[in-house]
Amino acid sequence: MNKTIVAEIISVGTELLLGEIIDTNAAFLAERMRDRGIFVYRKSTVGDNIHRLTVALKEALQRADLVIVGGGLGPTDDDMTREAIASVVGEEPYLDSQLLESLRGMFAARGRAMHESNNKQAWLIKSAIALPNPVGTAAGWFVSIDQKVIVALPGPPHELKKMWHEQVESRLPVSDQFIYHRTIHTAGIGESDLASRISQFTRLESPGIGTYARNSGVDIRVAAVAPTMAQARAVADPVIMEIAAILSPWIFGYDDETLVSAIMKKLVAARQTFACVESVTGGSLAAEITDCPGISSCFAGSLTAYANSVKIGAGVAEELIREHGAVSEPVALAMARVARKMFNADWGLSTTGVAGPDSLEGKVAGTAWIAVVGPNIEWSQLIDWPGSRQMIKNRICRSVFQSFFKLLKEEKCR
Amino acid sequence: MNKTIVAEIISVGTELLLGEIIDTNAAFLAERMRDRGIFVYRKSTVGDNIHRLTVALKEALQRADLVIVGGGLGPTDDDMTREAIASVVGEEPYLDSQLLESLRGMFAARGRAMHESNNKQAWLIKSAIALPNPVGTAAGWFVSIDQKVIVALPGPPHELKKMWHEQVESRLPVSDQFIYHRTIHTAGIGESDLASRISQFTRLESPGIGTYARNSGVDIRVAAVAPTMAQARAVADPVIMEIAAILSPWIFGYDDETLVSAIMKKLVAARQTFACVESVTGGSLAAEITDCPGISSCFAGSLTAYANSVKIGAGVAEELIREHGAVSEPVALAMARVARKMFNADWGLSTTGVAGPDSLEGKVAGTAWIAVVGPNIEWSQLIDWPGSRQMIKNRICRSVFQSFFKLLKEEKCR
Repeated sequence: MNKTIVAEIISVGTELLLGEIIDTNAAFLAERMRDRGIFVYRKSTVGDNIHRLTVALKEALQRADLVIVGGGLGPTDDDMTREAIASVVGEEPYLDSQLLESLRGMFAARGRAMHESNNKQAWLIKSAIALPNPVGTAAGWFVSIDQKVIVALPGPPHELKKMWHEQVESRLPVSDQFIYHRTIHTAGIGESDLASRISQFTRLESPGIGTYARNSGVDIRVAAVAPTMAQARAVADPVIMEIAAILSPWIFGYDDETLVSAIMKKLVAARQTFACVESVTGGSLAAEITDCPGISSCFAGSLTAYANSVKIGAGVAEELIREHGAVSEPVALAMARVARKMFNADWGLSTTGVAGPDSLEGKVAGTAWIAVVGPNIEWSQLIDWPGSRQMIKNRICRSVFQSFFKLLKEEKCR
Repeated sequence: MNKTIVAEIISVGTELLLGEIIDTNAAFLAERMRDRGIFVYRKSTVGDNIHRLTVALKEALQRADLVIVGGGLGPTDDDMTREAIASVVGEEPYLDSQLLESLRGMFAARGRAMHESNNKQAWLIKSAIALPNPVGTAAGWFVSIDQKVIVALPGPPHELKKMWHEQVESRLPVSDQFIYHRTIHTAGIGESDLASRISQFTRLESPGIGTYARNSGVDIRVAAVAPTMAQARAVADPVIMEIAAILSPWIFGYDDETLVSAIMKKLVAARQTFACVESVTGGSLAAEITDCPGISSCFAGSLTAYANSVKIGAGVAEELIREHGAVSEPVALAMARVARKMFNADWGLSTTGVAGPDSLEGKVAGTAWIAVVGPNIEWSQLIDWPGSRQMIKNRICRSVFQSFFKLLKEEKCR
């Protein structure tokens, strides 16, 4: 095997080609391999079709040292990954008695009858070892042939992830290249403006620099490859520091940091807390906030006040809604004040608007008011950006977090 | 062009191969094409590398009539899609004066200076027409060569989606094959048990039937291809009806229906409402509920009671928390009762547990109690399923919705 390991990922499933589900496995696998210094050159998705899967496997094996196949290991007739691998390596699958026994034990333990169709989940080929699946009936395969490796894992994300960590990682070939990699997150600056400010770096051969427009703003990824991690860092870190100095007004974090974790950092340092009263975002603000580990140190809670009666019950004056409508600046500010009071928090955040698809109070979907009320400040903004229901909710969340972070940043400078 | 149109999707971006973002564009494009009777045989993802992108494009053009490229149209050096397409069709890009003018106008309207790097966003080749981008600076390309079509669209999902609808769909070749397609959603039955119950259908040549394990349960997809939509329906519908009869105890909906929309249907029919008090799910229940259009007809609101003080303030007895801990059956039931009362709703849902990564009250991450309290019923359940913070939140939401739907279904049968 080459010392620089090149990998490809193949996701199997007609449902992925029909657009019904989004492939999160491929992103997970790509990230794990990046962290091990394995270069992923291509990801492909093919349907539940033995011919197309076999062709894709053959092509991938020509380009890559390591091919990870996700999906197609179920018990049903359209699960074809075992057949395709067997055909590519030219071996005949056989029923492995040990696998069959453990499969039977699994069904017995759950008090369920094992159907004959499950037998194929106990198949194996000569060049494969079975990878036990502690959370499902589909065992994986780890196949070694001609200096190349094929790994087959089941499609359900929690099975694939668990087996990757427990079974696959320790068996992977070791790369003698290290990738050092950092991502700088910015908000409030456009991609081309940002790129022009750091153009003296973006054309460097190493470290490689890429800019990416995201929901949260523009990200800058800086990556260097070298025989040791220390050497890779020595190439990348000085450039990262220079970029950080240039873009400092817009940077909110690095790598795994998010707008919410950046907000948490500032609030914990200031020993302050925050809370929300949400209408149009309907719990999405709170859901994203509570995705952040440790957030209970500064987040008190949130009220999803979907119905006007709930807003009024929580303390928003009824005449304010009657006079200005629920989607209005005065109501947004009142909701943010209610958030502070109700949850006994230093900062209150609020959203009120029209998620659609229908209009409300004569306002079209995408119209919203957001507000942030703190110890010394009352801030509000109109948002007017149509789209699908989920896009609208998502964008309003983004605006609230960006604005809140900016206010906290400025607050500190006073 | 063949009358049965075969398409491939290529997503461009090193960040997709590093696993930092999940490719939602490909799923969107795949779904749109399915609806037009276009067969997507493969999806590929390649990095920001002109050689690899060119190779992938050439390969795709050998297999498919239509290739959709998403991403790589930005203004920066690592945006290579225009260069790759020009190289594959053997044409020289030129600066299109009309595109340049409109680009300049866009920057002027936003009061921003246009950087020279943006010039490449005004490139065109002879065989391409430009697809205007109303929400960004990257125009798309629609390239016709040798009976084949290449469409290039910018990577940001809201730009790609808008341009697809406004610019691409009407220009696509028309298929003379129709795909009729329905998805049956079930919950509470395992995939192999389900497959064995409908095995007389899964081996049929047409309609094609696939079963898929999802977060929400197992889905059954039934699809038929025919020269007219009526013929395709005539093949699929009788089989769908037979499957529906066999699986009726587990079916909660079809196609776009979700557990939440199925719950809404039952509640609206019964003229009842519901509300939540969430702790461990931290707003995720409400966020998923409010993703459902029309839900305000039966959803009153939700309280994210993250801190114990908020639970107590809302009406959970302090001694209950002191005696049993916040993560306990009595507290879950008390929270669900509070939800009914606080929001004046017929049904109250609650969650309390440990999202992790740290333990709480000596309970490990993944431990939770959920409760549903209705007019004539008080129901609760322990959940004990470790995982990442987001997996835990997601699974608890799933359990709450499945249980609530089941209770509503049984309630009706009484």
